[in-house]
Amino acid sequence: MKIETKIAKFTKPLYLESGRILEPWQIIYETYGELNEDKSNVILITHALSGSHHAAGKYEGDRKPGWWDGLIGDNKAIDTKKYFIISTNVIGSCFGSTSPMSPIYPGSNERYRLKFPVITIKDMIKAQKILLDFLGIKKLKAVIGGSMGGMQALRFAVDYPGFIENIIPIATTYQTRPFVIAINKAMIEAIRADKDFKNGNYDPEFIKEHGLKGLSVARMIGYLNYISPKTFDRKFGREYVKTDGMFELFGRFQVESYLEYNGAMFPKWFDPLSYIYILKAISLFDISRGFDSLEEAFRNIKDKLFLISFSGDTLFYPEEMREIKEYMNKVGGRCKLFEIDSDYGHDSFLVEIDKFDYIIRDILEGEIDV
Amino acid sequence: MKIETKIAKFTKPLYLESGRILEPWQIIYETYGELNEDKSNVILITHALSGSHHAAGKYEGDRKPGWWDGLIGDNKAIDTKKYFIISTNVIGSCFGSTSPMSPIYPGSNERYRLKFPVITIKDMIKAQKILLDFLGIKKLKAVIGGSMGGMQALRFAVDYPGFIENIIPIATTYQTRPFVIAINKAMIEAIRADKDFKNGNYDPEFIKEHGLKGLSVARMIGYLNYISPKTFDRKFGREYVKTDGMFELFGRFQVESYLEYNGAMFPKWFDPLSYIYILKAISLFDISRGFDSLEEAFRNIKDKLFLISFSGDTLFYPEEMREIKEYMNKVGGRCKLFEIDSDYGHDSFLVEIDKFDYIIRDILEGEIDV
Repeated sequence: MKIETKIAKFTKPLYLESGRILEPWQIIYETYGELNEDKSNVILITHALSGSHHAAGKYEGDRKPGWWDGLIGDNKAIDTKKYFIISTNVIGSCFGSTSPMSPIYPGSNERYRLKFPVITIKDMIKAQKILLDFLGIKKLKAVIGGSMGGMQALRFAVDYPGFIENIIPIATTYQTRPFVIAINKAMIEAIRADKDFKNGNYDPEFIKEHGLKGLSVARMIGYLNYISPKTFDRKFGREYVKTDGMFELFGRFQVESYLEYNGAMFPKWFDPLSYIYILKAISLFDISRGFDSLEEAFRNIKDKLFLISFSGDTLFYPEEMREIKEYMNKVGGRCKLFEIDSDYGHDSFLVEIDKFDYIIRDILEGEIDV
Repeated sequence: MKIETKIAKFTKPLYLESGRILEPWQIIYETYGELNEDKSNVILITHALSGSHHAAGKYEGDRKPGWWDGLIGDNKAIDTKKYFIISTNVIGSCFGSTSPMSPIYPGSNERYRLKFPVITIKDMIKAQKILLDFLGIKKLKAVIGGSMGGMQALRFAVDYPGFIENIIPIATTYQTRPFVIAINKAMIEAIRADKDFKNGNYDPEFIKEHGLKGLSVARMIGYLNYISPKTFDRKFGREYVKTDGMFELFGRFQVESYLEYNGAMFPKWFDPLSYIYILKAISLFDISRGFDSLEEAFRNIKDKLFLISFSGDTLFYPEEMREIKEYMNKVGGRCKLFEIDSDYGHDSFLVEIDKFDYIIRDILEGEIDV
């Protein structure tokens, strides 16, 4: 599998949904496989909250491959022998696209920080569309993403009708529910509560070295909702850390030790301001914004919409995907829904790949149609 | 309804499950109604995490009544015209029973703080049993509690067989699941992450006045799990605060404003160390500790066990109450389970009183038997 990492820099302003602009701006992306002559084999992968453009393969010295490596590769469901796959890092994220920690203007030592504009899912895909235009891609074979990646796929379908052959949003919603906004809020406030966050004026190197407890707590809150109670049962049970005393106040169950470790690691690889900005984008997500109604938004989808949901998802409930299907039926759109039985929880889209990769393969090969 | 608030002080040591002791110690409690001559009309109420002994009625100037006022009172399900109700504040809590903020010995200016021993549910009810002995009460008509209150009821049944006529645990479990331990962990770490917590050496007056953001965040995390996604939908929808800008980074949805407000209020009335100690007690809860197996623990229950669960409880799932019922069936115990249809979530035991008060009335009046 051929992997390339590139950065596309744009000097023309990116007009944002908020009315503000980003200028200049850039987007980092990976590609897998080979673009065919008529550029008709392009698939766009869209990532989730803490994801990145690094969806597949390994870099030299990497212990773990990209986050969807089980799905993307030679002879895999998203076959790099057949397709040319583009995976970008969203605007606002911290892996190389323009973000709150970017310089406020070229060459400046000052970073945007809280002056960075609020970014929406619409802005994220607008940036990706400009990249695709720049690459001369006139049509996508598919756009595929889970969670916030699914929001992007859906938004793509609504905002650029006729541009995508197969839209495949996974484990997502059409409108972020107040319950999820509340989770995001708790995470945002956990970060803001940390004095070392300094209201956004932290030293990023200091944080990478010493951590940021508020961001660690935010990550723990995330875990509570990304994996299911049953997964917690299976993975940890009530095992206690052997070297900790049962009646020590800060003695730990295994599950606590796991949360502590992953919480502590998170600030080493994810930026707190990017986290806040992306959470905000998720909370603001509403496919009907810019339309008179939800129905009107869905009426705009002209391409084939394939939805994949997981029975045990307690972040974006399967009911929400069913509602999308109902809207599509109502407006006479082309839509198929696949409900996967899984009790793993929201993160099923990352860890239960075996349960849905064949669906994606069949869609891409035209074996499943609607 | 006659309400009295009293403090019982004990100079004999309280031997704790950890092997440590509390000496001296005290317990604050309220009573409602009148004790009859043969002391046979006593009902014990056990409270949840942030609850207190103030379960019913109003004090002079109070805006809100006690937390189970809908259930306890003249002619109510727990009828203060018939029964003498005792409601204590658990050991470790911050409303007047011995807690981490109590003096380390009588007359000392030093408080226990992190030197306070870890408290378990078993310890909480042991203290209550000593209080009941002190009051000359030989038998309880019932013990009734929800959530951590239900854990206490269950533990009472196992540890003091033959002492209670009707045991009524509501919205609870027999063994805290790793998922709930994880929630508790996130809350504990949110508090510890706050520099103003000073590793337990905070000035309580300062916190009452200025708040403690880490504790506010902990409270927000709690809300995510105590009320259900559907309740969030009903209560808040996607309404945005009118005076906030949609594209301001810290502009708020109504649900965010609600969490912010309740989060900010919490440190004014609840102590952070008590919160940590009680969370620890909940995480440690396992009805089988001290027995060879769960079955052996349940075999110890000699009295009538009435379980009430709520279909929409996503903290202590109805399945867990069903498992208690199965264990009781297995050991030939007397047990009845009532599953209440409610989509309000865990807090149903506080807010959906209309849906189960008649069951409690009927149990107490002997109309429901097992």
